[in-house]
Amino acid sequence: MAVYTNLGAEALSELTSHYDVGRLVSAKGIAEGVSNSNWLIETDGGEKRARRQFILTMYERRIDIAELPYFLDLLDHLAAAGSPVPRTIHDRTGATHRAIDGKAVALIEFLPGISPDKPTKEQLFAVGEALAGIHLAAQSFPGHRENRLGPSEWVETLARCGEDRLAEINPDLPRTLDVARQVKEEWPTDLPRSVIHSDLFPDNVLMVGDRVSGLIDFYFACNDMMAYDLAVIHAAWCFDESGNVFNKELGRALVAGYDSRRALSDEERRALPLLAKGACLRFVASRAFDWFDTGAEAMVTRKDPMQFARRLDFYEKADNSLFTPPAA
Amino acid sequence: MAVYTNLGAEALSELTSHYDVGRLVSAKGIAEGVSNSNWLIETDGGEKRARRQFILTMYERRIDIAELPYFLDLLDHLAAAGSPVPRTIHDRTGATHRAIDGKAVALIEFLPGISPDKPTKEQLFAVGEALAGIHLAAQSFPGHRENRLGPSEWVETLARCGEDRLAEINPDLPRTLDVARQVKEEWPTDLPRSVIHSDLFPDNVLMVGDRVSGLIDFYFACNDMMAYDLAVIHAAWCFDESGNVFNKELGRALVAGYDSRRALSDEERRALPLLAKGACLRFVASRAFDWFDTGAEAMVTRKDPMQFARRLDFYEKADNSLFTPPAA
Repeated sequence: MAVYTNLGAEALSELTSHYDVGRLVSAKGIAEGVSNSNWLIETDGGEKRARRQFILTMYERRIDIAELPYFLDLLDHLAAAGSPVPRTIHDRTGATHRAIDGKAVALIEFLPGISPDKPTKEQLFAVGEALAGIHLAAQSFPGHRENRLGPSEWVETLARCGEDRLAEINPDLPRTLDVARQVKEEWPTDLPRSVIHSDLFPDNVLMVGDRVSGLIDFYFACNDMMAYDLAVIHAAWCFDESGNVFNKELGRALVAGYDSRRALSDEERRALPLLAKGACLRFVASRAFDWFDTGAEAMVTRKDPMQFARRLDFYEKADNSLFTPPAA
Repeated sequence: MAVYTNLGAEALSELTSHYDVGRLVSAKGIAEGVSNSNWLIETDGGEKRARRQFILTMYERRIDIAELPYFLDLLDHLAAAGSPVPRTIHDRTGATHRAIDGKAVALIEFLPGISPDKPTKEQLFAVGEALAGIHLAAQSFPGHRENRLGPSEWVETLARCGEDRLAEINPDLPRTLDVARQVKEEWPTDLPRSVIHSDLFPDNVLMVGDRVSGLIDFYFACNDMMAYDLAVIHAAWCFDESGNVFNKELGRALVAGYDSRRALSDEERRALPLLAKGACLRFVASRAFDWFDTGAEAMVTRKDPMQFARRLDFYEKADNSLFTPPAA
């Protein structure tokens, strides 16, 4: 949650002049995006004379500029297929991104909607459905990007933190390294793949009522198993804040929504408890690493890795029936 | 530049339901306001069916809730008189502010425009004109609030910092305490008064081209000498970033713009160099105090008090001709 760069009126006006969007009339730095700076900007719409809103993103760190075409072209591909993702606005030369002071910037369509903070089962159904929609639409996307936050990286990251330092955060944390090693051994390789979002937390979903109006922030998107993406949402959305209490209704609604658009295979369904353990480990690992990497003086709030360590416990005890629709 | 409170979809929807503005469709925390949290929110406009935008402000600290009616009623008073300030949106009971979790919140009209970063003389003329406009309109405003950042407070604040600590920031800083004592002695009491903004830095002004589309952030507004408000803008806008180089053209345009709407009296014009010294001292004092008060770990960027100490030097050497229109 930050704006890392101060972008003045002159730079903003100069930038928008390269796009066929009309004249800039407003720009507000918004508190979204951990690795990027973002502005909500408004133009007079040019000849159409109707105000238009956009998100201007400046890529500050973590994003490799060489990968921007993958992320930005993906938005266009999905939007063209009717998925609720924001289009990339192209400049007059057709480019999807430009540079200001050596930093890449992109202009992205603004989508209405609010991130749900207490999602209902109707909302989870809609999210599952929308996820299946992007998986289907992305199968014809030509780009390719490896998942760089897979089983090898969880093990490596947790090992690099070290058992002593993990225990400093919480005495229950070191054992996640053993679980990570085990999950890595069991990790499937033959489940159906597509482009996955891989980080679809509630703050990356915009909703208007029970309708998904936007899936955003695709900067962890990669080619991987579709069912893993579903497992990430299951682990991220279907527990209460303490991380202890699983909400069975929400979990079922999510899977049912996904199934309604793209039916899970038996293999995928059987793999879900394991994939959900992997999803927990992915966030345990990155949060544990950031815990030490993020000094107390940093402007970013540290996220507790224990939240997902507790959910990992849950999935270790869970069985397949968790992901099976209730008998009709 | 921060959003101090996380306000969820549910709390936001509940809040907007008390206003006749339609249904909430978007909310983005914006990186504006040092003492408050702010969101740019959008509604479907209700029966009017045209999207509407608002600023939602949550008063976090520094703001005394008992003073909110002064600030919020002032906006309504000035907007009704045609000044470019945002209206306060009243809830269905007519209230100008409500509470969420014990904190006061207000819904404010959204105004287009961008804060100028390299203002032109045309823009300074327009700002002077707009300032005179609010001074004239506010003369019939019934509220009253003392200026709590006047000469006594500068002296007190700088004395509390102490010469040793001031010298730690910069060896040239301790002498500002002597200047503050002297300016306090000479400070006028009989110049014409109204409600003044008292903090009209460029980031509190929105412009569309050369037109002032919004004057915002009135939370330092108080009843004081109108010419002092003009002096604040003179000191805040008419120097380059280093604080050393005064831009005579900008200064003249500002005063000419003000004069065009409300002619300064001879007494006011004569007092301007002194008032400008006071304006510099006001910001030297608060920035020096915040320098020690704001730990290195805080999320707010410290502002260098030397910027205004250098401008103070300039005004000490300046004479009245600085504020006199060029002979026709």
